[in-house]
Formats: sequence, structure tokens, C-alpha cells
Amino acid sequence: MSHGPASRPADLRASGATMRSAREGGRQPGIGWLGTGRMGTAIVNRLLDAERPVMVWNRTPAKTGPLAARGAQVADSIVALADCDVVYVMVSGPADLEEVVLGEGGLLSGESRPGVLVDCSTVSEEVSARIRAAAAALDVAFLAAPVCGNPEVIADGQGSFIVSGPLKVFEQVRPDLEVVAKTVVHVGEQEQARLVKLAHNLYLGMMVQSLVEVVTLAEKAGTSREAFLEFFNGSALTSPWIRRRSPELATGDRHLTFTNELLRKDFDLGLAAARKLEVPMPATSTTYQLIQSAIGNGLRDEDFLSLYELQARSAGLSEAVT
Amino acid sequence: MSHGPASRPADLRASGATMRSAREGGRQPGIGWLGTGRMGTAIVNRLLDAERPVMVWNRTPAKTGPLAARGAQVADSIVALADCDVVYVMVSGPADLEEVVLGEGGLLSGESRPGVLVDCSTVSEEVSARIRAAAAALDVAFLAAPVCGNPEVIADGQGSFIVSGPLKVFEQVRPDLEVVAKTVVHVGEQEQARLVKLAHNLYLGMMVQSLVEVVTLAEKAGTSREAFLEFFNGSALTSPWIRRRSPELATGDRHLTFTNELLRKDFDLGLAAARKLEVPMPATSTTYQLIQSAIGNGLRDEDFLSLYELQARSAGLSEAVT
Amino acid sequence: MSHGPASRPADLRASGATMRSAREGGRQPGIGWLGTGRMGTAIVNRLLDAERPVMVWNRTPAKTGPLAARGAQVADSIVALADCDVVYVMVSGPADLEEVVLGEGGLLSGESRPGVLVDCSTVSEEVSARIRAAAAALDVAFLAAPVCGNPEVIADGQGSFIVSGPLKVFEQVRPDLEVVAKTVVHVGEQEQARLVKLAHNLYLGMMVQSLVEVVTLAEKAGTSREAFLEFFNGSALTSPWIRRRSPELATGDRHLTFTNELLRKDFDLGLAAARKLEVPMPATSTTYQLIQSAIGNGLRDEDFLSLYELQARSAGLSEAVT
Amino acid sequence: MSHGPASRPADLRASGATMRSAREGGRQPGIGWLGTGRMGTAIVNRLLDAERPVMVWNRTPAKTGPLAARGAQVADSIVALADCDVVYVMVSGPADLEEVVLGEGGLLSGESRPGVLVDCSTVSEEVSARIRAAAAALDVAFLAAPVCGNPEVIADGQGSFIVSGPLKVFEQVRPDLEVVAKTVVHVGEQEQARLVKLAHNLYLGMMVQSLVEVVTLAEKAGTSREAFLEFFNGSALTSPWIRRRSPELATGDRHLTFTNELLRKDFDLGLAAARKLEVPMPATSTTYQLIQSAIGNGLRDEDFLSLYELQARSAGLSEAVT
Repeated sequence: MSHGPASRPADLRASGATMRSAREGGRQPGIGWLGTGRMGTAIVNRLLDAERPVMVWNRTPAKTGPLAARGAQVADSIVALADCDVVYVMVSGPADLEEVVLGEGGLLSGESRPGVLVDCSTVSEEVSARIRAAAAALDVAFLAAPVCGNPEVIADGQGSFIVSGPLKVFEQVRPDLEVVAKTVVHVGEQEQARLVKLAHNLYLGMMVQSLVEVVTLAEKAGTSREAFLEFFNGSALTSPWIRRRSPELATGDRHLTFTNELLRKDFDLGLAAARKLEVPMPATSTTYQLIQSAIGNGLRDEDFLSLYELQARSAGLSEAVT
Repeated sequence: MSHGPASRPADLRASGATMRSAREGGRQPGIGWLGTGRMGTAIVNRLLDAERPVMVWNRTPAKTGPLAARGAQVADSIVALADCDVVYVMVSGPADLEEVVLGEGGLLSGESRPGVLVDCSTVSEEVSARIRAAAAALDVAFLAAPVCGNPEVIADGQGSFIVSGPLKVFEQVRPDLEVVAKTVVHVGEQEQARLVKLAHNLYLGMMVQSLVEVVTLAEKAGTSREAFLEFFNGSALTSPWIRRRSPELATGDRHLTFTNELLRKDFDLGLAAARKLEVPMPATSTTYQLIQSAIGNGLRDEDFLSLYELQARSAGLSEAVT
Repeated sequence: MSHGPASRPADLRASGATMRSAREGGRQPGIGWLGTGRMGTAIVNRLLDAERPVMVWNRTPAKTGPLAARGAQVADSIVALADCDVVYVMVSGPADLEEVVLGEGGLLSGESRPGVLVDCSTVSEEVSARIRAAAAALDVAFLAAPVCGNPEVIADGQGSFIVSGPLKVFEQVRPDLEVVAKTVVHVGEQEQARLVKLAHNLYLGMMVQSLVEVVTLAEKAGTSREAFLEFFNGSALTSPWIRRRSPELATGDRHLTFTNELLRKDFDLGLAAARKLEVPMPATSTTYQLIQSAIGNGLRDEDFLSLYELQARSAGLSEAVT
Repeated sequence: MSHGPASRPADLRASGATMRSAREGGRQPGIGWLGTGRMGTAIVNRLLDAERPVMVWNRTPAKTGPLAARGAQVADSIVALADCDVVYVMVSGPADLEEVVLGEGGLLSGESRPGVLVDCSTVSEEVSARIRAAAAALDVAFLAAPVCGNPEVIADGQGSFIVSGPLKVFEQVRPDLEVVAKTVVHVGEQEQARLVKLAHNLYLGMMVQSLVEVVTLAEKAGTSREAFLEFFNGSALTSPWIRRRSPELATGDRHLTFTNELLRKDFDLGLAAARKLEVPMPATSTTYQLIQSAIGNGLRDEDFLSLYELQARSAGLSEAVT
């Protein structure tokens, strides 16, 4: 459902009013959103599209402008968000998360506290558990809810939320999450969502390595990457991700989405989790060592599609681009 | 395009007539089809749906019955097919292929010969090259055209043809292939189609191994296979194949599609091709060794989704089913 | 050089006198030894064999008895060792090391301090660097000097010292180390000795995995493990370690030296070091995943020669023992 | 036992006489040796050192000169060797072997035949089984007896014979084999010796890969290859082979003993045997893929110690030599 920006301010004033009046009886029924970077903005836009009342806060206030223009209320401090029933946080890492939630002037530092805190950032299980415990001590329920997808994917409604925490709390916020993303799955009562996100990224690395092996095999036999990928993308084995990146793999003219170094970091975390859980990961670790070799061979800051370059060189494909 | 069986005989008589009259000037414009097992039948059905005139032959004549009922002409000998302009062969392996094409009473043994021979069987590059050479000596053009997809996938029009051989000949038969399958790709002038089919199957094995590693990782962290797969199938990493087999992976209640032993055979062939082409295949060979371990651990005749069992046991998942 | 125990006490009193008089001018020229477990005792015995004056201390004083009987002086407190010019520490892990060196009543807590502190324990680079820095602040030189070999190997003079720290300090203590071990190597100016010890253990794991692969291969072809090992041990590829453990590998009747779980710990540390240094370790990590699989398959507390069991099961060798 | 060449002719005349007289009663008790290349010459020299009567034949007769000078009788045709009780063959490959044994004018083509044929060449199990069957049909017992060691190692008496065939026949020739080599092992009743030789070479490749991983790890931490190898060669993990090649690994100044391409060939054969026997070989196949990568990276014709170069580049060791 979409409507012109003109009608928005009125709506918003209305929902602002609702929010304020609800406050008298305690918490507001609205949504608080902390962190309006590119991803945060994309998500809040979908909430606004669905006419959900949203109050936002961002460290750099200017970034909230476009959302305010579409009807979001802007909080003048983090603690002002604490009146909302549910507050989502999406910041860039564990240090930021701990600061905005537990630090001085943080979300849980005032007298009012939200009923539910939902963290959409990418942090480790350990940090997640620490925040959960701190929230619990203040009677605030906590959900870990990392997102898969980039801002464009979110805007198209094709994103995913992986959520872990108490099932009852999940059911409470689910309707809002479903407004944002196509896939909303509850994967456990504790921090499992963090691991599932890592598992997703491990698979991503293996998928690319598997693909570059068969691509180079076909290529050396005389089938162009383009022809191979045309076939592959028509088969039941391809994935939307491969389909999207195929032109870049075919031409070698690729743009940077995620470096080998960043992929290695996710493998570091994923393999550490596997070690802790005592799960052997033979194919994962083969891929991990190849990512490390790619870095050693000078591809550290290249997009991880450059696993193709490493493979092509090892296959003696003279035309391999660096 | 679909029409009732009642109208078919007339159509067929018509096309039968066309075929016969074309014969006077040499070859018939029709399609010959040798081998009407389950896959062959599914493909011919699509050709009949599109009102292509088809003459079929099968070693066990009874199997041609359903196609005859839908209007296919039935040849009383293999050589009778040789009058067709294009003859497709789909038999169960290299020995059969050589016999029906080059053997006594075989397709190329008589005076008439088709203009084009298209082999849709799964055979090695070596056999393919031998048939191509024998056909060329008799002035018959040859295309290697293995198919991806099972009979249901073909019936839905979702199959793929991977074709190699002279481009001009490919362009000539392409319209018929496109009637059958969604994806029709020319991958080279020689036997490349064989390798591309193998590459497809290598990827399939790696895809499954990659998946079972991340599934067991999530599972041991407390996320059910069902929840993990629900999330995964909503992400950009999943494939139609994974989506289709997810319920079986989730429940352990699986049916046999392809045994570990058969998958190993494709890896044998694919890795032999990689060796010949001097392409290292690190992730492929990790998966290959795991397939071998699965066989040693008693899973030889299980569907290759049982790579999950091997992984689950190695992860110490006590609930792993055998 | 070896002499009867009867002559020892006199010798010792003499060297005890020397130690005391040297003290007046500051430090004693003698050797202090902190930690007389099985390994420590074996090493001190070799020093005593060579008539070096040694003063020992152990948490459980009774364990110093046999050394005292052979002439070692027994310190009544850790700080009493601090008068020695060089003090060696061999304790069971990082916590103990930090306590006996830096803790209250520890070696560096008094007014006297040794000139050189040599740590022969097995600890991480991080702990090693911390001790080095603390020692340096007190003007005490530090050498990391892990040992390879078990007490029997040490007693036979076949052990090794891997030493890192300032070369000049190494040269100073080298004569004593050479009395103890056949091989004494300086591998760097900082904590490199720790890594070299880990590298040794990574190789040990790979050596065993490599061996069990070829052993099972030969075995399945009909060559007994015994015959294969007889051949192998006569070749230029075998190692003293393999020769020593061959009877156990041949018969399956093995005793526990080092569990799969402990081996995994060394691989954890070694691979973490490799990651930090950005060195890909493909064969190491294949072995690591197999150790993890062995643990998942119930071999956690078995000697790591049981990597044979895992391999034999995967090879479908029915006679494989559990 | 060694004596001057001057005394030899007399000895030889004597044994020559014995050989001739024995012949009257059928076969000679002497040894026939077919193929006096570098290895063959080294082995026959040891037999002559032990005063065994030996009759030799070589395609290029000049190569038998040095052996004749030391007392060996020279046969003027292959069939002349057939009078010897035991004939050894050491030729360069399967084609030569089949020709000299089964071909026209070959060892088994005349009326006389040896009691035992011992093949010391390196050939596949299939060829070995074919020769065995052909020999059996003519009532000639057959032993497969590949050798480990180069001519220098043989000259030093440090070589090995791996023997398979009937145990009784093995016991008959064993005394001669023990004159030649330190290790003489019977590994089975059929062609097992071929596989055991391959297993030896697979281990060799893995040993080198394992070593280069830990060497580069230590090197990147700041320990020179020389220091690391000094330590390693003092440990219980080293092998005579590693000790011998360490100076080359340390300095990078290496000579060619065996190329990566030849090592790959042995891995091809060894892994094919493992596949046939259904033995998974995870560490072997990791090494195999790295050998393939080394070839793709331009190291095809380098000595296989150059696996170090591949590893060093992947580890980003800038000083790595090409």
C-alpha cells in the first residue's frame, strides 16, 4: 500500500497523538527504530509504507530527514525511544550496540523501558547473550533478528529476518517483520539467529567456490563462461544470487560487494562456532583455505567472486584476469 | 498448446502424409525418436503437444503404445527411422548407443541416413567423439545433447538441453528443442555438452554437501532442520532443487532418486575429465571423498541426500537416522 | 658421564658451598628448577648426571625427594630460587606459570631476581609475551624453551629444546640445555618457540593421518598392517615416532599417549596462529576436520592413533576395531 | 664384503663353471638379470659383492661392460638367460616388460624357461597380473618385486624390496634379495607389491606437503627454514628422506629428482587403486589437488619440493623464489 507524501504528516500527527496518549497508560504501541543507515532506512520505509507509526533516532540526525518527510517521528534522544513498546536497533557492530543499549544515556538507562528490544545488527552470540541478560534483568524481552538482503532487496520486499528469542515475543512482533520481509523465521529461543546468519554466509562462500570449479572446468574444455552460466541458470541448481551475479562472472567486469577479507571474517566466526559445537565442516574448511590462499595471492580487497581468479590461475587458464 | 486426443489421429495422418511425400524427394522433414523409456516418452509427448510429426522406435515395442495413441508413428525397425531428417537417440548407456547407431541393423547401417543425429543419452566424451566420427564419415551431422531434468520436470517444460556440435546444425534443430525444454544452450563445437552435464552433476553433489554442513551446524545449535530450511528457502541462496527436496531433508523421510554409488560414478567421470584438462578441483574432491566415506559407512544404495547422515554422525548428532 | 650415587652427596655439598659463596657477590652460578613433575625430574636428572649444581622447588615437596637423594638442593620457597643465575620453570599450564612467576610469593616477587628465566612449559604466544614483558620490566632476561619428547626420551638424551628469546642469552644457557637434549635450536628472538612447538604437533597429526590412509589402502588390497609397516619402517620415509608406534598400529592393541581431544586442542592453537599469520594450511585443515569427525564418531578419549579406526570404517574395513 | 677386482675373474670362472655343470641337470642355480640400467647395475653389483653368480643381458650391450669386468657372465640373447633358475627383470615400463618377457625372442619364448621370474620394474597391477598369468601357463613362478631407493641408496645397502607372489617362491629367492637390500618384505600372494609401492609414493607426497605447511607457518612467524629444519631433524618426526633434502628446502637451491608431473602420475595411479578398492583418501586427495595447482601455476617440471613455492605464494611470503 502506497500513498503520497502529502497525506503523511497528518497521518503521522495522528499516530504521534496515539503514541503519546498510549504513553499515559505506560508504553506507546508504536515502533522505535534506532539506527537509520542505508539498511535501517530501507526497513523503516517499508514500515511506513504499511502505515505503521515509527519513531526514529540516529546518531547523525540528518539521516533521519527522508524518513521524517515520509511521516516518521524523530526522537531527540535515545531514551525518548524507550517509551515505544518495541524498539529495534540496527547499528554497525557490537561496540555500538552495547553503547546505545547499555551505555550512559542508552536505551535501557532511563526510567521508561520498551517491552521488547529487537536487535537487527550483526553481532556474535556472545554479545547477543550479554545484551539479552542485561535486558532480562530490566524486564525487557529480547529478540536477535539479523537480516539477509541488501537495501535494494529489502525495498523490493525480498529480504529475510532470522529471529531467535522467546517464541511468544516473536509472535508479538511478527506482523511488523512480515510487513518488511518476505521470509520471517523463528529459529530458536536463544541466540541461534546469529549462527543461522553465519551458516548462510558459509554456504554463500561454498556456493561460489563450487561454481567457480565447474565454470573453469567447462571453460577449459572450450565452453565459454557465458554459455555455461546460461545453461546453469536454466537448471534447477542455480540460485537467485548466482543469477544476479552471472554477468559479472561471465565478463570479469565485477563490482565490489564483499571482499575476500570480509568473507574470511565470516568464515572465522562460523568455523569457530562449528568448533564450539563440535561439528566437522570439511567442505567449508576447504573453501576457507582457498579464501586464505586468495588473500595470500593478492586478492584480499577484491570482491569474493575473485575466487574465480585463484581457480583459473591454478587451472592454468592463461586468459585469467587479475 | 494442448488439444484432445480425438483430434490427434487426423493431425497425424496429415503429418504422416507429409512425411511420406517428403520422402520421395529424399528425407522426411519429420523427427525420428529412438528410445521411448520414461524420459524419451516425456520428451516426445512435448513434441506431440506442439504438433511435431514424430516417428518412434523402441526395443520393447509396447512402450511406444501411449505415444502411438497420441499420434506418433511407430517404426517397425531402426533403419525405418533413418528416413527422418533428424533422428534423436536416447538410450541407457554407451554400449546401447553404439549398437543402435553403428551396429548391425543400426541407424547408420542402411542406405538411407538422417541428415542429423542428436544423441540425448549420457555417455562419455570418448564415446561421443567416436559416434561423431562414424557419423561424419557417412555425411551425417552429429549433436551431443544431454538433458537435465527428470520426466516430471520435462513434462512441465522446465528441462534443459545442453548441446554441442556444429553451430549451424544446432540452429537447425533448436526450434524443436525449444518446444521441449525451457533452456537450450549451445556450449561448443565438439563434445563439450558431455562435460557440461558432468559439471552440473559435480555442482549438485557439492551443493548438497555444502547444505548438509550448514544444516547440521544450525541443528546442533538448536535450530530445527525445518526452521533452517524455511529460512534458507526464503533466501537468495536456495535453488529450485533444494526447495523441492527440503521436506525430505527436514523429516529424514526420503525417497530414492540417485544413490551415492551413482553420484560417485559421475564424480569419477567429472574428476577424470578435470584431470585430463588439468583443472584442480579442491571442493569437488573434498565432496568426492565424503561420498566415498558414505559408501564405506553403509550408505551405498541410499539416496545421496544421505550425505546428511554421514555428516550428522560425524557431528555426534545422536538423533541422526540411519 | 655417570658415577655412583655414593659419591654424589659430597659433590653436592661442594657445589652447595659454591652456590652459597657466589651468593655473596650477588647471584649464584647454579641452576634453579621450578616444577619437578615427571618431565622436570627427567631433565634435572640429566643435569645432575653432568654434575651441574641444581636447586629445585616443587609445589608438592615430596616429589623433589629422588632428586635430593641424587644431590639436588631443595629450596624451601620459590623466592629462594631467585638467587640462582638461571631459573627454569616447567609447570602444567599458563595459569600456573603466571602464578609461580608473577604471583604473590612468586619468583619475581622478592628482592633477588635471577638473571635469566627459562620457561619450558607449554603455553601460548600471548602468555609467553606477557611473562617476557613482566620479566623485562624487572631486568630479567626471558627465554621460551618448550621441550619435545617424553620423560623416557629425555632420559635417553634424545629430547629437543626449541628456544626463542635474545640470541646472547640463548648462547649463555645453551651448554646446560645441550647436557639435557640432543637437539637445541634457537628459532627466533621473540615467542617463535611456541609456534614451532605447535608446528611440530600439527605435523604429527598429519603424519599419522597420511600413514593411516596408505595403511588402509594396502590393507584393503590384502597386505597386512604388519607387513606394510615392516616395509615402511625400512624405507627412507619412516620416522622414529612411526617406528615406535608401529606395533600398536599393527595389532590395534594400543595404549593412550595423547587423546584426539588433546590433539584437536593443538590444532586449534596451531590453526589460530596460522590464521593470524595468514598462512593457508590445506592439508592441516583436512586432518583437523578428520580429528573432529573422529571425536563425533565416539573416539574422543582414544589415543589419536585411532584416526586409523575412523579411516578403516570409512573404507568399509569390516575388521576395524572400535 | 668387498674385494679387489683382480681376484674376481677367478671367482667368476669358478662360478661360471658351476653354472654350466648345473645346467646339465636342467636349470642353472645362477641368477639371470635382464636390464642393466643404473638401478639394475647397482643391484647386480651388490650380488657380485656377495659372490653370487650372475648372468646379465641388456638391450644396449655396452652397459653390461662394468659388470662383466667384475665377473658377471654376459648372455648373448634374452633366451640364453632362460637357463638360469631365477631371472630378474628391471626395465623401464610395461611395454618393455611385456616385450622382453612375452614377445618374440623373449624370456618365455624358448624351450628353456626359468623356474622363477622376478619383476623389479614399476608397472601397474593389471600388467603385473597379465605377466603372472602368462608365466603360470608356462609353469614359471612369478614375483612382483618393485624396489624403493635410488642407485646410491642401493649401493649403500639401504634399499627395499616389496615382494608379492607365492610365499614359498618368495622364501626361495629371499636370500638373494637380502644380499641387495636392507628391507625385504612379502606383502601378499598376488600383485599387492605394486600397490604398496604406490602407497609409498602417496605418503611421500603427503609428507612433503605436510612439511611445507609447517615450514611456511614457522617462516612467517620469523623462524628461518634452516632453523626450523634443524629442530625438526632432531625430533622423532623427521625421516631419512627429509633429512637428506633439508638443505635444499632451506636454501631453495634444489636439484631435480622427481617432477610434479611425475608425482601426479603416481597419485593418479594410487588414487585409481584407492577408488577401485573403495578407500577414501582425504589427505591424499588434498595433496593431489595441490600438486595439480602447482602444475597450473607453472611448476610442472620442477622438482616436487617446489610444493613449497606454491604454499609460500599462497601464504604471501614475498621472498618465495620461483
